[in-house]
Amino acid sequence: MVKLLETERFDDLLAEGLKIIQSSSISTFSLDAVLLANFVYVPIQKGNMIDLCTGNGVIPLMLSKRTKGKLFGVEIQERIYDMAKRSVIYNELQEQINLIHGDLKDMPAKLGQGKFEVVTCNPPYFTMKDSHIQKENEHLAIARHELLCTLEDTISASSKLVKNSGKVAFVHRPNRLLDIIGLMKKYNIEPKRIRFVHPREGKEANTILVEGIKNGKSDLKILPPLLVYQANGEYTEEMKGMLYGE
Amino acid sequence: MVKLLETERFDDLLAEGLKIIQSSSISTFSLDAVLLANFVYVPIQKGNMIDLCTGNGVIPLMLSKRTKGKLFGVEIQERIYDMAKRSVIYNELQEQINLIHGDLKDMPAKLGQGKFEVVTCNPPYFTMKDSHIQKENEHLAIARHELLCTLEDTISASSKLVKNSGKVAFVHRPNRLLDIIGLMKKYNIEPKRIRFVHPREGKEANTILVEGIKNGKSDLKILPPLLVYQANGEYTEEMKGMLYGE
Repeated sequence: MVKLLETERFDDLLAEGLKIIQSSSISTFSLDAVLLANFVYVPIQKGNMIDLCTGNGVIPLMLSKRTKGKLFGVEIQERIYDMAKRSVIYNELQEQINLIHGDLKDMPAKLGQGKFEVVTCNPPYFTMKDSHIQKENEHLAIARHELLCTLEDTISASSKLVKNSGKVAFVHRPNRLLDIIGLMKKYNIEPKRIRFVHPREGKEANTILVEGIKNGKSDLKILPPLLVYQANGEYTEEMKGMLYGE
Repeated sequence: MVKLLETERFDDLLAEGLKIIQSSSISTFSLDAVLLANFVYVPIQKGNMIDLCTGNGVIPLMLSKRTKGKLFGVEIQERIYDMAKRSVIYNELQEQINLIHGDLKDMPAKLGQGKFEVVTCNPPYFTMKDSHIQKENEHLAIARHELLCTLEDTISASSKLVKNSGKVAFVHRPNRLLDIIGLMKKYNIEPKRIRFVHPREGKEANTILVEGIKNGKSDLKILPPLLVYQANGEYTEEMKGMLYGE
């Protein structure tokens, strides 16, 4: 029996038919995590996949419906790791999803180098220079700001964890595109697929999805753009598919 | 009186109400040049703008309707430079458009460093490794392949020609995005606006438009995507505007 702690609630992952524990004051998954879980290529039958900065575990939970492989998730905040763990138990996915409480920077030493077919990460977006950090509680601040890991930390760790020719996928903000690409190349992850997410037609992208291959050949594709909302304010058909399985 | 040479014809720049000399076996402007001429920011009232790899001069011709500033165009192939020159005369734009027959690599020494508000370039897309070069005639091969200038040559020259805080805009293929961005940063042109061009909805981008600012601050925007064709095969409204002025 899985218990909810104070401020927690069960939410639906409708497209996957799963439940997830969330708390507005501690951790809720974002649309970006949903986008990343749908964007990344995963092997269907087997393989090891690891999600860094996994938060309440939404990406491993969603990926459990796309692969029979083993899923790992790493979360540095114990309170949030504990939520993720209970969600996995609630959904009876303990055989497939292995959550780890720890620092992603320690994972290559702990789990071994080159052991994963796929690494995903929805990292903190804001650098320490951003000013709105003091308004947030500690849980949200750590999830959103580069307090405990920088973009370079996540890309460096990803490069060590992924096996040769394995895939690494990130979601981030367009203003960090140059940093991400530069760091991926620095750590021998060749960018192969980029998809820009625009809130609606005629608007600038507010999110980027990028996937690279460890020691891959140079051959970048820019995928068709993803629009989140229709002109009438409803989600687009593609987003409805991701969110509701429609 | 402007004469047409063998194989040449007058084509319309409908949106601008101009004529341009072209020859299928020597030089015709591409859609990419039209996209770049419409993408780049130009000062309306005054300033010096230079187009490298100008070919038959389509970009200066088109920009003459967007600015009262002085327009320069550099073309290394004398035969094509001559076509451009006659088009300028035919349209009576000699006061505004100054065409130069020469190598873009020599232009900073010849024209001076930091003299231009805007630099545009639609460079050769293919590296020397691409194999289809031997099928082309010399004029087309030089326009399409990095025979006489590399991407780095064009970006290096652009950086020298543009003034501080001036704009540099390129059109290229998405598989060179990482090279372009890396070289722009190497030569202190900070990428600020990128627009991806997709042939139609649901298709990967086949063209990129990128504009940077010399010594600009890091703040990249990904503009709404540009679609060229509608599902029915007609140009989109935006493209009709660029091509026909509709």
